[in-house]
Formats: sequence, structure tokens, C-alpha cells
Amino acid sequence: MAVRKKIASVTDHGGSLDAARSLFPNAPQPWIDLSTGINPHAYPQPILPADAFTRLPEPGKNAELCRVAGENYGAPSAANVVAAPGTQILLPRVASLIAPGKAGVLGPTYAEHSRAAAIAGHDAAYVRDFDALYDVQLAIVVNPNNPDGRIIERGRLVDLAQHLARKGGLLVVDEAFMDVGPLHESVSADVEGCGAVVLKSFGKFFGLAGVRLGFALAPVRLAEFLGAELGPWAVAGPAVEFGLSGLADRSWQASMRRCLEREAAALDDLLVQNGITVEGGTSLFRFVRTPQAPSLFESLGGAGVLVRRFVDLPDALRIGLPAGKRESERLAGALNGWRPGQQSSCQTGLEPVGSGGRIVS
Amino acid sequence: MAVRKKIASVTDHGGSLDAARSLFPNAPQPWIDLSTGINPHAYPQPILPADAFTRLPEPGKNAELCRVAGENYGAPSAANVVAAPGTQILLPRVASLIAPGKAGVLGPTYAEHSRAAAIAGHDAAYVRDFDALYDVQLAIVVNPNNPDGRIIERGRLVDLAQHLARKGGLLVVDEAFMDVGPLHESVSADVEGCGAVVLKSFGKFFGLAGVRLGFALAPVRLAEFLGAELGPWAVAGPAVEFGLSGLADRSWQASMRRCLEREAAALDDLLVQNGITVEGGTSLFRFVRTPQAPSLFESLGGAGVLVRRFVDLPDALRIGLPAGKRESERLAGALNGWRPGQQSSCQTGLEPVGSGGRIVS
Repeated sequence: MAVRKKIASVTDHGGSLDAARSLFPNAPQPWIDLSTGINPHAYPQPILPADAFTRLPEPGKNAELCRVAGENYGAPSAANVVAAPGTQILLPRVASLIAPGKAGVLGPTYAEHSRAAAIAGHDAAYVRDFDALYDVQLAIVVNPNNPDGRIIERGRLVDLAQHLARKGGLLVVDEAFMDVGPLHESVSADVEGCGAVVLKSFGKFFGLAGVRLGFALAPVRLAEFLGAELGPWAVAGPAVEFGLSGLADRSWQASMRRCLEREAAALDDLLVQNGITVEGGTSLFRFVRTPQAPSLFESLGGAGVLVRRFVDLPDALRIGLPAGKRESERLAGALNGWRPGQQSSCQTGLEPVGSGGRIVS
Repeated sequence: MAVRKKIASVTDHGGSLDAARSLFPNAPQPWIDLSTGINPHAYPQPILPADAFTRLPEPGKNAELCRVAGENYGAPSAANVVAAPGTQILLPRVASLIAPGKAGVLGPTYAEHSRAAAIAGHDAAYVRDFDALYDVQLAIVVNPNNPDGRIIERGRLVDLAQHLARKGGLLVVDEAFMDVGPLHESVSADVEGCGAVVLKSFGKFFGLAGVRLGFALAPVRLAEFLGAELGPWAVAGPAVEFGLSGLADRSWQASMRRCLEREAAALDDLLVQNGITVEGGTSLFRFVRTPQAPSLFESLGGAGVLVRRFVDLPDALRIGLPAGKRESERLAGALNGWRPGQQSSCQTGLEPVGSGGRIVS
């Protein structure tokens, strides 16, 4: 059978407590999951219509969702917006908007982009240098970046997008964490003009990852194609309701941004007090680097606190926000119990060095 | 920009009360929606875990969902099952499993298949004769068929699938309505052996169309590719829970099958009493043909009862099951108020003829 065979396996992305339990079977319960960048303060559930689960979502409601999302994100118009059951499912679809060619992913970053580009038939590689993206057909930039929070300025993205569009290429900007800013670097308003596709995740900032809702903002003719591919009823009834409520609620969004900033600052304080260097991140997660990352991962895991490690960045960890006082205290206790020099089964040949500035308590 | 441009617009599929309201602004409320083939008796909502909306669905739960679905549908193994947010989103993905070529859709049938095949780059056409499917690369059969309920025997499908597989082609069998039988004609158990892909809709039989859940059953290597394309977390948290409950509940399923059969028989009696010929269907919807279909559509719509009409089959209607006594009585009253000869703005040049056997009351 002449069937496409290219399959890349999905990387671990954190967020699996099943995996945590099997790694640390003796950890105290309940688990504290800081392995994702998902807001621990979920947007409150709206009253779901009785038929949200039973009836097909009304096409008119989906159109309204795109309008509200477009306004919230600052898209040129509702016709530039495609609603999807999460952005994940959009990645290979967006990568397929141009013919297979050379794809460059500004890395290190979220691993699904290169996997999706490869599924779409591209010859995908990570690039470290932004300017190298001018030489590919499909360029992918996560902005702000996951996991390190690196920001690329809007003007540079628009210029790159225009350059790629002129030669038949495409820039994809994944703004999954842009809800927490810096909003002036978003290219949402530029998609029609510069030809880029912007991805927006609903579940992260609104703390509703199980709802599965995401958006592509794109030039109208690309948005039409993506919408046609997804077909009618792509978004579940409850997801439409959550989206309509949350995306229109600017007041919740504004106060949540401030709340997350405060909590991220408090997390930084806690980490620094324990001698851990915070290199970056967003206010939904912090990115730390230390040669003792493997031992820290292991020690926190043993205390029932799951953080995110990276196969290709053994000296890095991503740490999400604890949900409130009880979780913060568990994290503080777990950090306090950490002995930086201790051996770890997760270590990858790196020698634990010194205290890394940690004030040994 | 070298972007794919082929876009086919989505056909009306019924199920939109917004559309009904704009067609019949003066109809009595509430609307009775008989325009879909969705079970009006929804599977009861399971207790959703507190984090079903907030956390990413656990990969382990998705695997369990595939296992339970595979057992329920009789797939060779869980590895043959891919869970998706509805079957709709799978259609272009399944059609893309083979290189673009000639696609044949056994018609008339659900319009999305030919649209999806075209999106995947195939030269798609309807064929009336099953044997003509031996000459295409991608063959699509809805079994039982929507809207007329026509059944193709399992042995014929397996033979066609094997023939197509030998020449690098693919048979897709859409079993969206197979939950109500005849189950012995399902090719679910044959996918590994014959190379076919079978599509299963959760929302129709379980009356949960808003949940968005569907499955592809496929040979393992195709299932792996489809799963990789959808990526992690394709199915929303609540949909996983609904699926796990409903698909394991054989007792509810068995009694629901009997209930739907009784109700379909009662609907047939009502239609025949009103001179309407029932040509076929399944126990989730009935397919009627009468030259007076346009006037019947109009008359029922004016009475607040929405049924499904077809642009290409102006003498046909599809009528879903009323939900209980009150809706049955509304339908009976609406049928009673119908005057077969009356003019209709929806008529398409067909002359209303005689009474079509209708016993004029």
C-alpha cells in the first residue's frame, strides 16, 4: 500500500502524573504538578447549556467564538481566525500549508513543532540563529519561547514573514504564552499584512488544558483552507462556551496577568533563596539552569513535586507556578530537603559542581 | 505564496436551529430538531473528575479509551484504534493516507466524504455502482448508508479492501451508524487483515454530538500515522470520560438498541398513516421519498419541526426520532396539518403529484 510512513514519536511534555507516579512510586500524595506552563488558577466554569454535550455545536456559535477570539487577540478580523480543538492538532495542518521544503525551528523550543513539520514532509531542523530562518521555506518561532521565555521583537518577525511570503514560504509564530505578554510583541494584528500564521492556546493562560481549544490567526485565504480542513464542529460544545466566556472577560484577564506576575516573582525568590539561578521564562513558568538539575528533579520528585526536565538540556528545568499557599509550602519544603550534591539516577554524566551559589541551609 | 488553494464549502448537514429559525421565523417554539441522526436519548453524563477541564488529559487514559473502544467495536487490538475529537476531523487525514488519485464515494451519501477527499488532493466522484469502486484508488462507503440505510455486506467490503490494498489503494468504511446494526456487517474486526480504515462516531448512538469523539480503526501502521498526526491530547478531558463510560456500558447499549428500534417503528407507523413512504434508514433516522418532500419540509418547518432535506435529492427527506411523547405529538400534529398539494417556496420545479398514497384526513 502506497502509504506515508514517516512517524516521529511524541516527546514527553510533562503534565502526566501517571508517568510521575511510575518514576517516584514512594512520593507523598497528592502530587504537585509543576511540570506544565498551565495556569493553576482556572477560569471559572461558565454555566453550560443543557445541550452543550448532546447537540452539535451551532455554526453560528463557532463564528461568534472566532469573532470574540479575534477581538481578544487583536486579529485584523474574524475571518482571520480558525478555532480548533487545541493548537496541537493544528501544527501539522499549518506546516502543510506550503509544499514540503526546508523547515527551521528556532530552538531549543517546544518539541512538537519539528515533529509536525516532519509529518508535513518538511526537512526540519533546529536553528539557533534567528537570521538563519531567512534561508528556509517554513520558519517556526515560539514567542515568548518555551521553555526559556526568549522574546523576538515584532518588527523582526514581520520582516521575516514578509521575506518568506515573497519566496513562497511561511512564518509560523506560536504565541501559546503571549497572553502573559509582552503583548506589544504579538504579531496577531499583522497576519494579513505579513502573511504569517499565529497560534494561540486557550488552555494555558485560562488554566483549561482539558477543554482543548486553540486558534490559528492567518491571512484570510489560509484561514479558509484550515477551516475547511478541520470541517464543521471542530470545537466541542463545552469548549465553545468556555471560550466565549473567557475570551470576552478582559477584567479577569487583566487581574490574572497581575496575579501571575506576583506569583512568578515569589517563585523566583524561593528558587534564588535555594541557590537556583532563574534564567528566564514567562509568568506561567520559570526556566532554571544548574548543573545539578538532575539531582533537583529527582529530589523534588521524591517529595511529590513534579517539574519538567529536558532530554536535550540536562542542566535545565522548567518549573510551573504552585497553586496557592499549600503547594508553595510543599515546594519550599521540597527545595529545603534538596542536597545539591546528591547522586541521582536521572543524571546524564554531568558532574554536580559546587553549590551554584546555593545557600546551603 | 505557494499555498494550497482548494477549498470546498461545507454542505448544510442539518442540526442547526439558527438556520431553522431564520428559515421559519414564525414557527412555534421550542423547535423540534429531527434534522440529524443523533440519538435523542443521550447517555447519562458520568461524574467528571474535578480536573477534566483543567488538566491535560493523561496519555494513559487516552490509551485506555482506545482499548475500551477497540473492545466495544470489535477491533483486532487497541493498537488498531485512534481516538479523535469527532470523526469529521479525521476525514481528510484518512483520505491523505494514500497519494492523490481517483477517489470514488458510493453515493448518494454524507457530503463530507467527497469534500474531504478533494481536500486531500484526490479527484473525487460519486459512483452509484459498488463494483465501480474496484477501479479507484480511494473508495469510500458509508455502511449503513446515510441517508437511505443501504447496507453493503461485509464479505463484499473485505474483498474490495483487499483488492485496493493490493494496488496501493484504500477502502474507507464509515460506520457512523453501525452501532444500531446490522453488527454482523461491520468490518471492524477485519481492518488488519484487509487493510481498510473504519470510522466510528461516538456522538450519534450515544446522543452526545457536542462532546466531539470519534475513532478510526485501521491497520496498526496506519493507526500509528494517524495518531502521530493528531498528536497528544487530541481528545478533550470530558470526552475521554464520556467515552470510557459509554463504550464499556454494554447493558445500556443493548437496551438502547431495542428502544430505538421500537421508536423507529412507531415513527414509520406515523409517517405511513400520513401517506408518506418510508424507503429506508436506520433506527436513528428514517429516509422518506415523496414528490411532495419540499411541501412537507416547509409545512413541518412552519410548525416548528425541522427535518433534513437534500439539495441533490429534492424528493427525499431524512427524519430523526422524536424525543419522547411530547415531541411525537408535536410531529403528529404537524403531519396532520400538512396539505400535500400546497405550494412551497422550497420547491425545486417538481410538480406536486396526487396524494402519493397519503390518506387525506
